[in-house]
Amino acid sequence: MSSKFKNAKRIEGLDSNVWIEFTKLAADPSVVNLGQGLPDISLPMYIKEELSKIATTDSLNQYTRGFGHPSLVKALSCLYEKLYQNQINPDKEVLVTVGAYGSLFNAIHGLIDEGDEVIIIVPFYDCYEPMVRMAGATPVFVPLRSKPVDGRKWSSSDWTLDPQELASKFNSKTKAIILNTPHNPLGKVYTREELQVIADLCIKYDTLCISDEVYEWLVYAGNKHLKIATFPGMWERTITIGSAGKTFSVTGWKLGWSIGPDHLIKHLQTVQQNTVYTCATPLQEALAHAFWIDIKRMDDPECYFNSLPKELELKRDRMVHLLESIGLKPIVPDGGYFIIADVSLMDADLSDMENNNEPYDYKFVKWMTKNKKLSAIPVSAFCNSETKLQFEKFVRFCFIKGVHLWQETTLLMLCSFCCILSRST
Amino acid sequence: MSSKFKNAKRIEGLDSNVWIEFTKLAADPSVVNLGQGLPDISLPMYIKEELSKIATTDSLNQYTRGFGHPSLVKALSCLYEKLYQNQINPDKEVLVTVGAYGSLFNAIHGLIDEGDEVIIIVPFYDCYEPMVRMAGATPVFVPLRSKPVDGRKWSSSDWTLDPQELASKFNSKTKAIILNTPHNPLGKVYTREELQVIADLCIKYDTLCISDEVYEWLVYAGNKHLKIATFPGMWERTITIGSAGKTFSVTGWKLGWSIGPDHLIKHLQTVQQNTVYTCATPLQEALAHAFWIDIKRMDDPECYFNSLPKELELKRDRMVHLLESIGLKPIVPDGGYFIIADVSLMDADLSDMENNNEPYDYKFVKWMTKNKKLSAIPVSAFCNSETKLQFEKFVRFCFIKGVHLWQETTLLMLCSFCCILSRST
Repeated sequence: MSSKFKNAKRIEGLDSNVWIEFTKLAADPSVVNLGQGLPDISLPMYIKEELSKIATTDSLNQYTRGFGHPSLVKALSCLYEKLYQNQINPDKEVLVTVGAYGSLFNAIHGLIDEGDEVIIIVPFYDCYEPMVRMAGATPVFVPLRSKPVDGRKWSSSDWTLDPQELASKFNSKTKAIILNTPHNPLGKVYTREELQVIADLCIKYDTLCISDEVYEWLVYAGNKHLKIATFPGMWERTITIGSAGKTFSVTGWKLGWSIGPDHLIKHLQTVQQNTVYTCATPLQEALAHAFWIDIKRMDDPECYFNSLPKELELKRDRMVHLLESIGLKPIVPDGGYFIIADVSLMDADLSDMENNNEPYDYKFVKWMTKNKKLSAIPVSAFCNSETKLQFEKFVRFCFIKGVHLWQETTLLMLCSFCCILSRST
Repeated sequence: MSSKFKNAKRIEGLDSNVWIEFTKLAADPSVVNLGQGLPDISLPMYIKEELSKIATTDSLNQYTRGFGHPSLVKALSCLYEKLYQNQINPDKEVLVTVGAYGSLFNAIHGLIDEGDEVIIIVPFYDCYEPMVRMAGATPVFVPLRSKPVDGRKWSSSDWTLDPQELASKFNSKTKAIILNTPHNPLGKVYTREELQVIADLCIKYDTLCISDEVYEWLVYAGNKHLKIATFPGMWERTITIGSAGKTFSVTGWKLGWSIGPDHLIKHLQTVQQNTVYTCATPLQEALAHAFWIDIKRMDDPECYFNSLPKELELKRDRMVHLLESIGLKPIVPDGGYFIIADVSLMDADLSDMENNNEPYDYKFVKWMTKNKKLSAIPVSAFCNSETKLQFEKFVRFCFIKGVHLWQETTLLMLCSFCCILSRST
């Protein structure tokens, strides 16, 4: 075939994708899907109603402002002014994007050059690495490492960066670090001290910080989400990314946003205007309405920003209990809606799984999906090739699921896996 | 400021954008906006109703398949199988994108390398040039030129490519040509003979064809839209791009699609999964429903694919009449919903307009928006810097407008401009 029919060099080797592979596997209707972070709970009634109403207004089905629908950027600036305790210009310091994915892409494509280095903390949300590679830059990985837990419950806060190891990754070529708090897949919520170490290094090496905070509201008792952009010297160098999908449990709306100083956001805007130009108007208008409802009652327990984490904390505790009851050791997350657990204890017989070169967790999830009708996501998908071995015993389960799925999950886990355990012990 | 705060090199100089500049100008509610292609007609009732219903179904507000919602890719493959008279695999030969913009970007970013040449026909939809430049490739421009019309009505079909001139632009570095039929802003509908010239050159030079056919249904009496992908030897090298915004007059939905062979589409998919991952689910589901309604009645005059061009042809004729009545010479379009006219005849006094370095049409539109409360788009925005002078006398008016706007437009044009004419004659 002609060379003209081949991919552009920038996407060489970037075609595999864990979501596409495992979502396809989980599409079998008999499979309980705890893989992708696909909320299966009741949505806030008002967000659905707003969209339903807006759909019937002709003008709200037409193009809107490219960098964000006026009512939405206003709502976002109002919300984040409260959180940053500083003014945020809705036109210049907010950009609405096609999901948080779009914000990540715009930031990386708008600010990162060929030859730059970008620090990525392992494990990481899987798109960080190909996005950095597509920009021609070099990802530099630094792992979160677990402290010994000596029989205690294992918590996401046991996983930390070694400050010396982190510092060793910074140099004059370091253009940015990608931070993710609350962290996916670990559920780690970075503390003030941990963020200060990162901020100090960013300032010392004059480095940008791309802070993926899509789970900002999903933080459990005893933890507090902090924004690194509010640390001294950080606003001017930080792009903070949020998500409607995670904030209001509408992942299918594909709306996200970047917040940051004009001198950075303007470059993300340039990428947006030359890639997708604008985001869907009816969804942006409905999202703005939903925000105003909750912005006005932020101290109220009914506010979705407060009620969703309360609802999820119960589900988290139940999932921890369920995983423990079948003999696994879960890492209890302080935030987000995923839980990871070491599945190697289960000693499943994977000998008949094809493709023996795959990491253990890939084979395990494929086996579990096929034989146990339960799907999840292998954690090594969140690692670079060199660190996959460190994480291949772990599988990620999503717990933002409704009663029906919970019953099925419980039943599946207790019946199917106890059989394995009784066989293997 | 630190060099780390500057844009990545790939977006250098790509920050100006005609839509952002002129949409902002037209935002004044007292201005009649005939600029951006923003339909102001009644939308098909069923598309609004479908979205309104779907919004209330929880699961349809969550993530769907990354490369296109299953029901939508099925509808698209069914529709295009009829038009191509060939099977189209919904999973491998169709990709749903964030508008046609997203398809253009995915195609260019997935297939075009640094150092490649890409042929662009002038005037051109303005994003083609920055998208090609962002990929590090070199745009090579070739103009449509008008035949003399000797007092006849001036038609978009008078504008043609010189086959020798076109052939001179192809060489071994030519990776692709971007075709746009029906053409924006001219409204030209390429004939079979014209497309054959392009197809022959694509085959001779083993070149890809990116065919932007977003106005495929908006073709007026005496003309027929032809798909270059159906020409012998062209399917394997062509990406054909369509748009929900243009097909169903819902520009705010930001849904488009690419149709092409698996060996090309898979590279667009790789770009999509590393930039936005997926498109909005409720909009895709509603669009699929709307397609099924119209696919089932394609021979019926009520089918939107047939009724919309009929409705628009009347508006086109009325706009032609209106422009002629104030002494301008419009170029009558055979397709699309724009009409361009030479405004230099008007001899407007632009001496008090700022920024004298701008092309005439930029200044004219700014003057008209400010003084006449009527906005449009300067045609030189659709040109590269070397050809702006050739087109700076032209302004593009959008005619997909409802009764109310028509009345205002007519009034504004007849009153305001006749005064100028009477003053200047």
